[in-house]
Amino acid sequence: MSRIYRVAIVGATGLVGRTVMKVLEEENIPNLEYCLLASAKSKGICIDFMGKEYIVDELTENSFDYGVNFAIFSAGGETSKTYAPIAASKGCIVIDNSSAFRMDENVPLIVPEVNRGEIYKNRGIIANPNCSTIQAVVALKPLDIKYRLKRVVYSTYQAVSGAGKSGIDDLENGLQGFSPNKFPYPIVNNCLPHIDSFLENGYTKEEMKMVNETRKILNRPDLKITATTVRVPVMNCHSESINLEFEKDFDIEELKRTLMHAPGIIVQDDISKNIYPLATNADGKNEVFVGRIRRDDSVPFGVNLWVVADNIRKGAATNAVQILKELVK
Amino acid sequence: MSRIYRVAIVGATGLVGRTVMKVLEEENIPNLEYCLLASAKSKGICIDFMGKEYIVDELTENSFDYGVNFAIFSAGGETSKTYAPIAASKGCIVIDNSSAFRMDENVPLIVPEVNRGEIYKNRGIIANPNCSTIQAVVALKPLDIKYRLKRVVYSTYQAVSGAGKSGIDDLENGLQGFSPNKFPYPIVNNCLPHIDSFLENGYTKEEMKMVNETRKILNRPDLKITATTVRVPVMNCHSESINLEFEKDFDIEELKRTLMHAPGIIVQDDISKNIYPLATNADGKNEVFVGRIRRDDSVPFGVNLWVVADNIRKGAATNAVQILKELVK
Repeated sequence: MSRIYRVAIVGATGLVGRTVMKVLEEENIPNLEYCLLASAKSKGICIDFMGKEYIVDELTENSFDYGVNFAIFSAGGETSKTYAPIAASKGCIVIDNSSAFRMDENVPLIVPEVNRGEIYKNRGIIANPNCSTIQAVVALKPLDIKYRLKRVVYSTYQAVSGAGKSGIDDLENGLQGFSPNKFPYPIVNNCLPHIDSFLENGYTKEEMKMVNETRKILNRPDLKITATTVRVPVMNCHSESINLEFEKDFDIEELKRTLMHAPGIIVQDDISKNIYPLATNADGKNEVFVGRIRRDDSVPFGVNLWVVADNIRKGAATNAVQILKELVK
Repeated sequence: MSRIYRVAIVGATGLVGRTVMKVLEEENIPNLEYCLLASAKSKGICIDFMGKEYIVDELTENSFDYGVNFAIFSAGGETSKTYAPIAASKGCIVIDNSSAFRMDENVPLIVPEVNRGEIYKNRGIIANPNCSTIQAVVALKPLDIKYRLKRVVYSTYQAVSGAGKSGIDDLENGLQGFSPNKFPYPIVNNCLPHIDSFLENGYTKEEMKMVNETRKILNRPDLKITATTVRVPVMNCHSESINLEFEKDFDIEELKRTLMHAPGIIVQDDISKNIYPLATNADGKNEVFVGRIRRDDSVPFGVNLWVVADNIRKGAATNAVQILKELVK
């Protein structure tokens, strides 16, 4: 008889939490049983999940007292900071979607296609990276292995769903003429070069997440990276313009094949047929879509890429479920 | 008594043509009289302009026979190719908004803030650059003078108005659930990495316009440049994420002051107050807005900029009227 694992979904009523459950239903991982947790205000909500009805329980410091083996936290940084260490202290392994522990040197920061092996170095907490970083490193890793990255320039086109339900509301309500609540300015007819708060160095936290998390996940602590992260009036799926410089020369067709054969990537790149990655096509998918692959002649060994993924799925929920699958394997 | 110049507005009923007239009304340049020209299908349309009613006449090869001194063409490349040389042969100086003559070595490509002096080398045709290039070079020129540009990486966030009325219709109708007519895919909830047609090298014409026109306007034929140009679901005003590398070191505060004192630029850069350039703020303005100015430590002398301008005004109409003002001075 196989062992049964108990999995807590923390933040079950939120945008990412609900998508975690959707991905779990699709994956239907055997021998798991679930409990759904959220803040006091969501206590008692009924959610259909895995063919039965679950009642959301309140997250407290006693939630992990009785045999919770794994927990996927998607309830924001403050909740993670408070409750993830409690869960870990009681033997639960936490997969944390917040930024709270990502740069902690004792916490593995995992994108399974990139650094699956690091999962087993966890001390009870595993961090799920920032959405915009996840999709980028899935595309960067196979190229780093083959041509060794020298420099990365990111410019992002990030969907409002990355800011949660209130981001979606801002776009929907903005289209009806209402003022924004979540974003500092209307997102309708604007591209806001401002995601998360500003830091002293002039960058946003989001931009520095892309710099620091890319380095940690690729295990390239000195990799040269810069980022401009921008919110665009798109409902779901982040797009990224990525300019890369390599140490080694490459053949562009071989580089494309390298991406085609890499895990988690679908190359969509046939300009003769107007085929390139699009947010509306990536929506609801678990893969990272890469296209507009072309040599950049402004540096010796440069390439430009256009990378699109569902930020709620691969950028959050799917990546967390992939980690869970690895843990219960 | 001052001389009176006669100015033809070619493409008077189009999006750019109408904005040319709006800017002319605002500028109210003395000693000019106007005639409005367009294709046969617009003949006879009445347009209120400069306080009186003008009737649009049909553009023919005889339109420039009688003392038309200047013409602003905004009627597409084919019209320019046919009629601009005819106008020039009859002594008219054409300011052409199309891409038809921009890379012709006998045609000056003018952004007045950057290379005003080249205007007088014209042989009857002066080209107005591509919208996304104009706003970029206004920001780049003062920095090139002071720190000498080494490399430019462009990623653009371009409004649908850049594709004319049919681009605007695609966004408006798309929001009502209708399929696109102008763009190959829905622009609603998408960022399309595809502006103008694809070339053999994998780049779009729009991307190569940014590369080649930037070099020509800055008179830096060997400048290293790469571009990714993207259409976003924004009605008007292009935004650009620009990564620059210089030959010389700089002090970031001095660099900001250099931009503040440069012609045609408004620096909007106070992150402590969430001040940065936005499309909705640039809409209807003639200046180029620059912000998010910060050192890029991934190269020795690098900087990131966020540059926004009204693509119909400074990116087309305003720039053309500035050239006209210089010519009649």
